[in-house]
Amino acid sequence: MFESFAVYLTEKASLTPEDLKLVEAVTVAKKLRKRQYLLQQGDISHQNCFIAKGCLRLYRIGEDGNERILRFGIENWWMADYESYNSGQPSKCNIDALEDSELLLIEKNELDALYKAIPKLHNFRVMLEAKSFDASQNRILSIISETAEQRYETFIRSYPEIFNRVPLHMIASYLGVSRETLSRVRQQYVR
Amino acid sequence: MFESFAVYLTEKASLTPEDLKLVEAVTVAKKLRKRQYLLQQGDISHQNCFIAKGCLRLYRIGEDGNERILRFGIENWWMADYESYNSGQPSKCNIDALEDSELLLIEKNELDALYKAIPKLHNFRVMLEAKSFDASQNRILSIISETAEQRYETFIRSYPEIFNRVPLHMIASYLGVSRETLSRVRQQYVR
Repeated sequence: MFESFAVYLTEKASLTPEDLKLVEAVTVAKKLRKRQYLLQQGDISHQNCFIAKGCLRLYRIGEDGNERILRFGIENWWMADYESYNSGQPSKCNIDALEDSELLLIEKNELDALYKAIPKLHNFRVMLEAKSFDASQNRILSIISETAEQRYETFIRSYPEIFNRVPLHMIASYLGVSRETLSRVRQQYVR
Repeated sequence: MFESFAVYLTEKASLTPEDLKLVEAVTVAKKLRKRQYLLQQGDISHQNCFIAKGCLRLYRIGEDGNERILRFGIENWWMADYESYNSGQPSKCNIDALEDSELLLIEKNELDALYKAIPKLHNFRVMLEAKSFDASQNRILSIISETAEQRYETFIRSYPEIFNRVPLHMIASYLGVSRETLSRVRQQYVR
């Protein structure tokens, strides 16, 4: 399972075979079945997770009992609750698998040590975090300024590979529109 | 004007007088009058800006010609369009002053050199960026899951020092609600 992670790190972060050995030494493989949790509210998110296969979601349960989806993740994406991960405080979120998934986990302290040992990996991480912040800013802009129709189109255009794998009611939750509104929008869109 | 920046860096990032000399050598002071631009759409956001005094906003003009406010900034906050700053691409945003403001600017390449020279400053930056990302995730959660009333309350609770300084229609834009809705919410809230 490490193979796909190795390919990713070689292509994206230019890691050498020697670098990869350091990474492999601290990487733990884990399989999740569909619906299984990676993280539950109250746990500390102490591992960063690379998704080798499958699909995960990060979500919070609102006071009304409804799920609010903060993020999806698929192959070659990273997943953790970074608020908990960075602060060491218990998470307010859950992460679970929407499909049978194969994951590669690294403990935060091990990953921090890798960043020191492999500056290229650290630079890659900084770049990823900047992109992630940009994406969240663009998502905010989309939610505060676009109609339900436009948000749906933006989502399909931005994440075509997620849109086909995730149930409609979860996309509605992610976009912050009701399921009924999204069904109507989707019908219009298909026409 | 550097004095307030020095106090901030000493208190928050534990910089020494020697560190501060390095920072001061590359810091440029700038005053902005109310309504003046720090950045205009199409410019590259090549400086990070520390706000010593005043209030700025970062916003984008939508296709409908309306302003969408992505962020406010006041004393002791940083401001730039980080998407443009990190990518070196022209900005899609504007930054202007909502009050007469005093700013301290550092060019990106100078700041990157400071991070190498002063690891404490780099660690502080990493911590700030993580907090900024958390704030954006919480804002997304607020927008996709809360009513206009709740969003307004969340905003007042999170940013009491901004809420009194910024016109209501800009808070409406920030929250993604219409001006009319926010006026109604505010009246209810005052009662």
